[in-house]
Amino acid sequence: MSTTASAFTPSVSAQRADGQAIGYLMQQGIENADCLSLAAGFVDPETLPTALVDKTASRLLSDSETGKLALQYGTTGGSDRVRAVFRDYLARLEGDEDRVHNVPLDQIMLTTGSQQLLALLTEAIFNEGDICLVAAPTYFVYLGVLDGVGAQVIPVKTDDNGMCPDALDAELRRIDELGQLHKVKLVYVVSYHDNPAGISVSNDRRPKLLEVTKRWSQDHPIYLLEDAAYRELHYDGEELPSIWSFDTGYDSGDQQHVVLSQTFSKSFSPGLRVGLSVLPPELVKPISDLKGNQDFGSGHLSQNIVAEVLRTGEYWDHLAGLRTSYRAKRDAMVAAAEEFFSGIDGVTWRTPAGGLYVWMSLPEHIPTGFDSPLFARATEVDKVMYVPGELCYPSGWEDRPRHQMRLSYGVLAAAGIREGMRRLASAVRAVIDSK
Amino acid sequence: MSTTASAFTPSVSAQRADGQAIGYLMQQGIENADCLSLAAGFVDPETLPTALVDKTASRLLSDSETGKLALQYGTTGGSDRVRAVFRDYLARLEGDEDRVHNVPLDQIMLTTGSQQLLALLTEAIFNEGDICLVAAPTYFVYLGVLDGVGAQVIPVKTDDNGMCPDALDAELRRIDELGQLHKVKLVYVVSYHDNPAGISVSNDRRPKLLEVTKRWSQDHPIYLLEDAAYRELHYDGEELPSIWSFDTGYDSGDQQHVVLSQTFSKSFSPGLRVGLSVLPPELVKPISDLKGNQDFGSGHLSQNIVAEVLRTGEYWDHLAGLRTSYRAKRDAMVAAAEEFFSGIDGVTWRTPAGGLYVWMSLPEHIPTGFDSPLFARATEVDKVMYVPGELCYPSGWEDRPRHQMRLSYGVLAAAGIREGMRRLASAVRAVIDSK
Ligand SMILES: Cc1ncc(COP(=O)(O)O)c(C=O)c1O
Ligand SMILES: Cc1ncc(COP(=O)(O)O)c(C=O)c1O
Repeated sequence: MSTTASAFTPSVSAQRADGQAIGYLMQQGIENADCLSLAAGFVDPETLPTALVDKTASRLLSDSETGKLALQYGTTGGSDRVRAVFRDYLARLEGDEDRVHNVPLDQIMLTTGSQQLLALLTEAIFNEGDICLVAAPTYFVYLGVLDGVGAQVIPVKTDDNGMCPDALDAELRRIDELGQLHKVKLVYVVSYHDNPAGISVSNDRRPKLLEVTKRWSQDHPIYLLEDAAYRELHYDGEELPSIWSFDTGYDSGDQQHVVLSQTFSKSFSPGLRVGLSVLPPELVKPISDLKGNQDFGSGHLSQNIVAEVLRTGEYWDHLAGLRTSYRAKRDAMVAAAEEFFSGIDGVTWRTPAGGLYVWMSLPEHIPTGFDSPLFARATEVDKVMYVPGELCYPSGWEDRPRHQMRLSYGVLAAAGIREGMRRLASAVRAVIDSK
Repeated sequence: MSTTASAFTPSVSAQRADGQAIGYLMQQGIENADCLSLAAGFVDPETLPTALVDKTASRLLSDSETGKLALQYGTTGGSDRVRAVFRDYLARLEGDEDRVHNVPLDQIMLTTGSQQLLALLTEAIFNEGDICLVAAPTYFVYLGVLDGVGAQVIPVKTDDNGMCPDALDAELRRIDELGQLHKVKLVYVVSYHDNPAGISVSNDRRPKLLEVTKRWSQDHPIYLLEDAAYRELHYDGEELPSIWSFDTGYDSGDQQHVVLSQTFSKSFSPGLRVGLSVLPPELVKPISDLKGNQDFGSGHLSQNIVAEVLRTGEYWDHLAGLRTSYRAKRDAMVAAAEEFFSGIDGVTWRTPAGGLYVWMSLPEHIPTGFDSPLFARATEVDKVMYVPGELCYPSGWEDRPRHQMRLSYGVLAAAGIREGMRRLASAVRAVIDSK
């Protein structure tokens, strides 16, 4: 009486997680394995700190006491000993020792990459139909997380200086007029060198975005999720203070609004899966409860390895080398854009001051999606892959731009980047010429 | 206009995760840090393979190619290379090479401990109000996961031979008569030396539990989640075949019913957080989609370390040593039970053939819960902590037994185990005498 597999119906939750961009993208990556990839969000394998991790793991494991701590069960958010080291690191990054050391350790949480924190926070505060305001474009995997909880996702106008505070204010006013303000739970911003567009929120907008968020927090707190994943991949210009640094709630003990999310995936090693966050106090318990059910703690050996390179300071040397290397690759991609695209009418791109991505816009009548002529031509004839820009806008947004591309210089070396750009330009020309 | 934190309302999902036993237990552990703990589910720190992990990590990381694979991003369920090694391991464990090697690699999934698999599977198949049948008593953290999705949890009669197939059948019939069969999604069994009671499902019941599950899978598949967390912590008697081994769907390509969940937390190192599972094909995509949103992959360095000790075979030597050491500690606890409790009327316990726990029952009028006189006496006067047995039954079950205790010999050395048991007996005597 056993039945066929087709009778299985995934839960509502699993159905919502179905068909997310990240899945398609991985699939395309597998199907187009013969392409040069400007799509992969991976980091540069040449910069992975294998020797440093080797040395560090040995030091930890050859001491029986620290070795045992790294291999035993622990507490859900990370051990206090390790979290204290991460707090010191944050103090250095923020350049404000006192302020950071005032944050109780339990408001600091370690997760499986920062992705898990994004997912946990979202699960902890969103019910179906609740609203999240996001920069447009934004990090597409997070859009998938929001779809996963059945959130309404509203794009906010974003320009070269990041999300526009006035546009955020106007959207919140509009939502309020519709009587929906109580549903707004979160504003999501990748504050430094964002994925996908390489944009940082400018200095003057940082306090303003927070101010708007606080002003509309009337009967309940609206949080601002500051995803600072690319904070440390900074190549030129001044280093900006975090939006978190403007959150006076952390000093005064009033309502705290900013959730600061950081990761060691970009600056050190994604395979260790170590994410670090600072949470307003009332979010600690719901997020820990959820994580308690999901895994009661992320990998301790990894956390201890990162803590140890922070403690010795070797992390900072590694980071300096990483920046030099990525800066050169960023330059290579921008030079190749100049070389191959400047002759094509209506193609524009931005030179990012950090991060891993160049964002390129084509003429509006040239769509870039998975089912577009360009994507077919690029992957089938020219053998190059990119991330279609439309993935980076809320999927429910009918009018989303469809003529953009995210190009990554993360994985390839300079020569590969140039060749990838050459191929891409060839595909773009071919499609424009065929119109 | 900023508001106070008290206006924050956690999501329905976070509210459901609130107040789970694991949270209380950790809290009690912290508050009673001066107690000898027979409560902690941790493994024996003395047996943690620090030297072996050190050597293995070095071998992986000193080779630039394997080092980079361990530190880079990868695929959500683990790399094929690593999964192939885990499949070989499973083949050895199952003693049936051909059958296991027929399982496609993508049905093998690596997670952050096995806990994450339990949580992901539950999220993938349960909607609110759906039904799970569980052994009684059972692993309390999983009860929390079920509460987390708003499941109805129905205890099934369980004796010294594990969950009773007839009782399972009778429950399913009762549910069917209520017109609720369509809501039944899962039967959950810890098949070897279970947490909390140290019971294994007997040989003859293994195929029977599966047969009942399949028979009631009428319009949709009911799955049997075989949680084999303690499979390898086996001290005496014959090693039983997994329930999974009886699932003919894996041979014939018909509907597969058993999800096999294993972990390296008990047999190797919990801090690495490596769980391993085998999934029916239709569950692969929903579970990967959910995990894609949650972390797009668990720690690769950890996975590579475990794969490497499996490949070299050093894992098996470690396991042999572990068994010898736990066997002695099991003996120490049972001897201490004999020494200190045999004189107390109405106290019984079971000698487990494996795992980490001795399950003890007191006279029925002596409750053991966190708010009981015994718990207070034990933690405040005698300075010993245990896990109240009632946590291991569905929280909605009014008539659940409240006079039992889970006692772990995992962490303490033999002398500590004896002393803990002496203290506990003193507390039990005091409470009985005061009645
Ligand atoms: C903006 C942003 N946030 C978060 C993440 C999550 O990465 P991880 O989980 O490795 O920290 C990424 C990874 O690509 C990202 O681009
Ligand atoms: C029965 C059972 N299943 C699963 C787990 C999860 O452990 P881990 O996530 O470390 O594999 C445990 C841990 O105590 C357990 O006792």
